[in-house]
Amino acid sequence: MTNGEKALKLHEEWNGKLTTEPKCTINSREDLALAYTPGVAEPCKVIAQDKEAAYKYTIKSNTVAVVSDGSAVLGLGNIGPYAAMPVMEGKSVLFKSFGDVNAFPICLDTQDTEEIIKTVVNIAPAFGGINLEDISAPRCFEIESRLKELLDIPVFHDDQHGTAIVVLAGIINGLRITGKKKEECRVVINGAGSAGVAITKLLLTYGFTNVTMCDINGIIGENSKDLNWMQKSMVEVTNPEKKTGTLADALVGADIFVGVSAPNIVTADMVKTMNKDAIMFAMANPVPEIMPDVAKAAGARIVGTGRSDFPNQVNNVIAFPGIFRGALMGRASQITEKMKLAAANAIAYLVPDDKLNDEFILPEAFDPNVRDVVCKAVMDNIEPDGTNK
Amino acid sequence: MTNGEKALKLHEEWNGKLTTEPKCTINSREDLALAYTPGVAEPCKVIAQDKEAAYKYTIKSNTVAVVSDGSAVLGLGNIGPYAAMPVMEGKSVLFKSFGDVNAFPICLDTQDTEEIIKTVVNIAPAFGGINLEDISAPRCFEIESRLKELLDIPVFHDDQHGTAIVVLAGIINGLRITGKKKEECRVVINGAGSAGVAITKLLLTYGFTNVTMCDINGIIGENSKDLNWMQKSMVEVTNPEKKTGTLADALVGADIFVGVSAPNIVTADMVKTMNKDAIMFAMANPVPEIMPDVAKAAGARIVGTGRSDFPNQVNNVIAFPGIFRGALMGRASQITEKMKLAAANAIAYLVPDDKLNDEFILPEAFDPNVRDVVCKAVMDNIEPDGTNK
Repeated sequence: MTNGEKALKLHEEWNGKLTTEPKCTINSREDLALAYTPGVAEPCKVIAQDKEAAYKYTIKSNTVAVVSDGSAVLGLGNIGPYAAMPVMEGKSVLFKSFGDVNAFPICLDTQDTEEIIKTVVNIAPAFGGINLEDISAPRCFEIESRLKELLDIPVFHDDQHGTAIVVLAGIINGLRITGKKKEECRVVINGAGSAGVAITKLLLTYGFTNVTMCDINGIIGENSKDLNWMQKSMVEVTNPEKKTGTLADALVGADIFVGVSAPNIVTADMVKTMNKDAIMFAMANPVPEIMPDVAKAAGARIVGTGRSDFPNQVNNVIAFPGIFRGALMGRASQITEKMKLAAANAIAYLVPDDKLNDEFILPEAFDPNVRDVVCKAVMDNIEPDGTNK
Repeated sequence: MTNGEKALKLHEEWNGKLTTEPKCTINSREDLALAYTPGVAEPCKVIAQDKEAAYKYTIKSNTVAVVSDGSAVLGLGNIGPYAAMPVMEGKSVLFKSFGDVNAFPICLDTQDTEEIIKTVVNIAPAFGGINLEDISAPRCFEIESRLKELLDIPVFHDDQHGTAIVVLAGIINGLRITGKKKEECRVVINGAGSAGVAITKLLLTYGFTNVTMCDINGIIGENSKDLNWMQKSMVEVTNPEKKTGTLADALVGADIFVGVSAPNIVTADMVKTMNKDAIMFAMANPVPEIMPDVAKAAGARIVGTGRSDFPNQVNNVIAFPGIFRGALMGRASQITEKMKLAAANAIAYLVPDDKLNDEFILPEAFDPNVRDVVCKAVMDNIEPDGTNK
């Protein structure tokens, strides 16, 4: 049986990967009178006086909605909300397994930006956080930023920020190994969708000054065509050398490559034109932009991919469970840039100097310390007023 | 410590009465590759081809949304979605404890009818059924009927139909005891909100022919003022004797009283004007329309209330868990009148002749057979095409 066949069979056996379970047993009329009517009226009355008490008496304190419209699911594309369910259930399982955070899949039967925003606002009372997932760009940017304005709970598009945090952690460790300085590195990001934009923004916030984005038409710059509003806004802060041309042109003299794009589009010849000790994240799935052995043979020093069967896997599960756990425990109202940087640093420095090497720049997803260090990093960076607004 | 204080303390300890739990363990990269990426793509692809397969591979098969806008919560009124959370969590707990059905609270931050309808439609893909709860009349009628049209999963407003089913079951057994015939009974329903309307409708469907509704202004008839559209529509099918006057006038010569109204509004003198062997359901909570001892002293034979500390408790938990379980197991697309009547009959006849008496007309909520007989009654009444549309 192939892995795919096995996965399908297991999904049929599970018949849903998630259950809802009571924390209270209801075995008698007395139990019923405490957990339900008439006793339940007491916490209701307290919350009616003070909305904040919902965190004391309800699941809001530790529950996240995993929200998707199924428009950009894994490598599958726009498969809609029903077909997206196994992924969102899976994500909910990861929230619990890795973060001890309750999560429930909300798969939306609409791909209209305004309707998505309204729907999420309308269902927010039960949740302590909103994890947006697999929503296509550029709608995901507007949906996230509008929801952040409208809601007083953290809203986090994991495809953007989870990926960006783990990539930054990997790059921080790449710099630790190679001794390169962020201010002196040329970075090339290939792919200008949700992940590419978020990675670019976080690297700039971290202090990289020379980041160049490419899309299917080559280097993104002042004369690029067919850019969406978000990509246009990136032109102002990227490509300081005003380069033009192809991805190959961008890579000449580059120190760091980050691919969130398509299989096999980086060649060995292109790698040879990069600077010494090149750091490469080739995250197209399942086939990376360049295979690690090819990249290394061509001179790259550190290569990460999205795959678990190669070293240096960039896996969001390193980040999002601890991030939401920290945000929920600390009652943050937003997940800020400061928290993201702290999370990336915490992930990076979980790999101690004596373990750090070209083939081991990121902690294992199953490292039991990952969640706690990320959680602490997030909590330590919540503003004193708790609001972060 | 009072019961209320104990309930509040327990709610703080629980800090949410519900958790989400994985059905699959994620202890290794292999586990991750089966429950999440890349294996998860397999069920996604199957569902993308055939939406129906969501019932095979996802939680949709056995999960209900408990939806409320917090506009009519218990005896507390319009306390909003945050304060409604403990009730909706409690209801979700009951779904699992009594029906083995997963349920999740969806508390809506809007009380606009159109927005509620849109929101529920938008989140429906993850759910196999929608349980509406504590939504004020007459909006609840429109919301339910519109959702039934728009969705292909069962939509059930428990305050209406759950209550109506259990009351009908109690009345069926009241007739078994007293030997009265439904065609010969005068029934008075006091309270013309969601429960009062639904009880009236179900009794008419069952075969009662003389049902009179009262509201705060007295008997509802052609000249009644301040009726909403649903109450107006009830005028045509109720009050065949064209009575006018007060609740006291309505009760003269009545055989059955059903109160879903306010405390202490029925007096002993009013009961004395009812026919012999009167059956009374005084369900105002926590103080009934008339106390059982007072009613009995005045001549009523059978008295039920909403309270667990008196005999003959009308408790929705007898009905809704089995109803949804049956609808989900049978893949019904609606919960029809036929299913409701079958459920009421099944509940009634779970009390055998030799157990049935004035003080025991309804099965105990904790009777382990309740769920299964209700479930079977529902499944036996699903139309052959499964659709019920």
